[in-house]
Amino acid sequence: MAQKPSIPKGTRDFNPEQVAKRNYIFSTIKSKFQRFGFQPIETPSFENSDTLMGKYGEEGDRLIFKILNSGDYLNPKKGAISQEDYIKRESNLLTKQISEKALRYDLTVPFARYVVQHQNEIDFPFKRYQMQPVWRADRPQKGRFREFYQCDADVVGSDSLWQEVEFVQLYDEVFTALKLEGTTIKINNRKILSGIAEVIGASDKLIDFTVALDKLDKIGEAKVKEEMLSKGIPEEGIIKLQPLFTLSGDFGSQIDSLKTILSTSEEGQKGIEELDFINNAIEILGLKSAKLQLDVTLARGLNYYTGAIFEVSAPKGVAMGSIGGGGRYDDLTGIFGLKNVSGVGISFGLDRIYLVLEELGLFPETITKSTEVLFINFGEKESLFSLKAIKALREQNINAELYPDNAKMKKQMNYANKRNIPFVVLVGEEELKNNQFTLKNMISGNQDKIDLQTMISRLK
Amino acid sequence: MAQKPSIPKGTRDFNPEQVAKRNYIFSTIKSKFQRFGFQPIETPSFENSDTLMGKYGEEGDRLIFKILNSGDYLNPKKGAISQEDYIKRESNLLTKQISEKALRYDLTVPFARYVVQHQNEIDFPFKRYQMQPVWRADRPQKGRFREFYQCDADVVGSDSLWQEVEFVQLYDEVFTALKLEGTTIKINNRKILSGIAEVIGASDKLIDFTVALDKLDKIGEAKVKEEMLSKGIPEEGIIKLQPLFTLSGDFGSQIDSLKTILSTSEEGQKGIEELDFINNAIEILGLKSAKLQLDVTLARGLNYYTGAIFEVSAPKGVAMGSIGGGGRYDDLTGIFGLKNVSGVGISFGLDRIYLVLEELGLFPETITKSTEVLFINFGEKESLFSLKAIKALREQNINAELYPDNAKMKKQMNYANKRNIPFVVLVGEEELKNNQFTLKNMISGNQDKIDLQTMISRLK
Repeated sequence: MAQKPSIPKGTRDFNPEQVAKRNYIFSTIKSKFQRFGFQPIETPSFENSDTLMGKYGEEGDRLIFKILNSGDYLNPKKGAISQEDYIKRESNLLTKQISEKALRYDLTVPFARYVVQHQNEIDFPFKRYQMQPVWRADRPQKGRFREFYQCDADVVGSDSLWQEVEFVQLYDEVFTALKLEGTTIKINNRKILSGIAEVIGASDKLIDFTVALDKLDKIGEAKVKEEMLSKGIPEEGIIKLQPLFTLSGDFGSQIDSLKTILSTSEEGQKGIEELDFINNAIEILGLKSAKLQLDVTLARGLNYYTGAIFEVSAPKGVAMGSIGGGGRYDDLTGIFGLKNVSGVGISFGLDRIYLVLEELGLFPETITKSTEVLFINFGEKESLFSLKAIKALREQNINAELYPDNAKMKKQMNYANKRNIPFVVLVGEEELKNNQFTLKNMISGNQDKIDLQTMISRLK
Repeated sequence: MAQKPSIPKGTRDFNPEQVAKRNYIFSTIKSKFQRFGFQPIETPSFENSDTLMGKYGEEGDRLIFKILNSGDYLNPKKGAISQEDYIKRESNLLTKQISEKALRYDLTVPFARYVVQHQNEIDFPFKRYQMQPVWRADRPQKGRFREFYQCDADVVGSDSLWQEVEFVQLYDEVFTALKLEGTTIKINNRKILSGIAEVIGASDKLIDFTVALDKLDKIGEAKVKEEMLSKGIPEEGIIKLQPLFTLSGDFGSQIDSLKTILSTSEEGQKGIEELDFINNAIEILGLKSAKLQLDVTLARGLNYYTGAIFEVSAPKGVAMGSIGGGGRYDDLTGIFGLKNVSGVGISFGLDRIYLVLEELGLFPETITKSTEVLFINFGEKESLFSLKAIKALREQNINAELYPDNAKMKKQMNYANKRNIPFVVLVGEEELKNNQFTLKNMISGNQDKIDLQTMISRLK
């Protein structure tokens, strides 16, 4: 292989610094998940194709990575594709016959499969979290990858609104712990959207209506109305929408306006009640650094969400799409035959959170420091003496290492510098004789000849 | 989908208890890796097929999971397989044309690819660790899976034997931290094996010779000799081997015997010197709970190891294959065009370590306890009051949760029991009025009416 090796497009290598930063985000989220009583599960990277296909729409089916069957998969003796089908040379037809497994596309469908498969071992309500990679054959572009992690927390088996309250708190806790203050947790409810559509006489056009409404921020009121008209939503209905475009004030007063707008829709009223419950609880419990905001234009995941809809945006001034989202779905496990199990969940967008923390300089410096002290290698006797001290340092939970080769001093010091190792220890003939160590601070340049105990207390 | 969903054979779901136990092993290994100055990297789950194919032998190539190209991969317009080749209907031929990516088979080849690709950003010697899943289309059987984790630590860019010394210490540290005492770290050296083969006139039959020698434990001396003879190793050579079969005593005296046996082999002498160096250092530095043992029959990975060979076996009385292994390879990155970079590394067998800890009851009880206290749900007012207390508990790093529904008391208590939650809190009318909490110990059954501060100090 003459040219430099490479990796598939849309995938990434992570170097030590990147892994440390990613792990910092993972472990912060994880510890808050556990603080709230969520338990981890893990599912296989690939599932039977049956499990995944048909669950994400036609586009989704296309984006799922399929795994080729092993062995002589075209051999007719092994029950493979018939010659008649084979010579048609159609990709879709062939795929079904030469691939029976596929890489996980998200964590939600495997979770639903898990719940149904293990329903007899699970104690419901089941509060689970899962942090694993998923794969999508999307066209790679800035910020969009073919392999990326999802971090999800869900509760299934309870329709209590306290879960929604807790998820608002959980978002606030995680982002506060990451020092990412000033996030906005936007909330809406599918029932509000249905109610509005009902009121304006567009119940049969709920999707068209919400797709247009969702663009309010981007294209403005006039264009939204235009799009609605073009989709066949009656003009008199759109006029009734007017108060929605000018909805303002705090959560409570927006709720009041909605009560008027939706007074004739039972479903709409139910949605208002739910939002009101969540908002009241959050007002009493308080949030640390996030703000809860009602956003009636929020319509993500409308295909499956049946109640609350969440989306989190980064603090003002950071140009970044949503860094989290979620909602309630009333029949997730129905696709695998287990009916009437309500669920609600949220997700954290790891890659975007990473970019935001990077942009705002919020990663703590300590997380990328791996080794505290490097012992310079001056030869065999000195190294053995050093390794004894290193052993003692490690016992005290100090990350320490010996430069493996008796290389030029400059090379070894360079290595310490490049790796951001804050201290080096020099052990020469004299130190050996006196059972001492020269400890050099790589930042200040100061150095001292000290004994092991002093060195330990300095480094701790 | 009428029948219960399932997962592909050879893969596994992990429930919360299993994840907790696996994470306990992972995080113990990880913290020791870091203590020794290793830094984490991560590579993509799939690599270009070029990168993987041809690196693991024919059998390996067969066991690599291949990913089907996306889109209309059979379309001749897209430069896909020619019709002439297509109608041959040969799996191997087709695979090359419809699959250009493959799932990682181990962590070593991706690591070599990483080092070559990023050689200009890496500060050598590069001490990296990596813990990620790998996939093999092996026939699944007890303890052998199609998806499993590898945990590897390697150093590249130094041929210093201090690394071997550190790896012996690292094994000892990890297994001691896991309370798995009494492991045996077996060590050998490729040069010893080459030396023996040279001395008995079987240099051209090194592999046959070591494969036979490797079976000494299982089939005994007589059968080993038989096999050697059948492979064409001269009888007078096998006679010279005699002292090897009866090699005994401690490390030092075995080294002495080897010095005699290998007196005429320069390479053998070099191997002895290396083993001697490592053993002397370890004798001076000491091990906590493991034993270092010379095992001249150890021949794993002979295709790539060029110096030290390691293998770790579980404590006596536990029937389990090796729980770790590794060695030195002098030209790992050569396959990707970067010559003369020596490396040495070790690996931990997660699944087997898990089984051993399970068998010996060595998992700490605390790791599977996720939630410390469950608040029983008696209704809306009580829940809101409870959530305020829960918030305060979580501030104190206590994992706490509210049962989401106002269900029957018995159901809620059952839930706490099944989830092994050690405390529940009851908040009824009286507690609400007096701003108190009834804290019940689920193990002793004792309960007390106390205020928030007292509850916090009891639970901490």
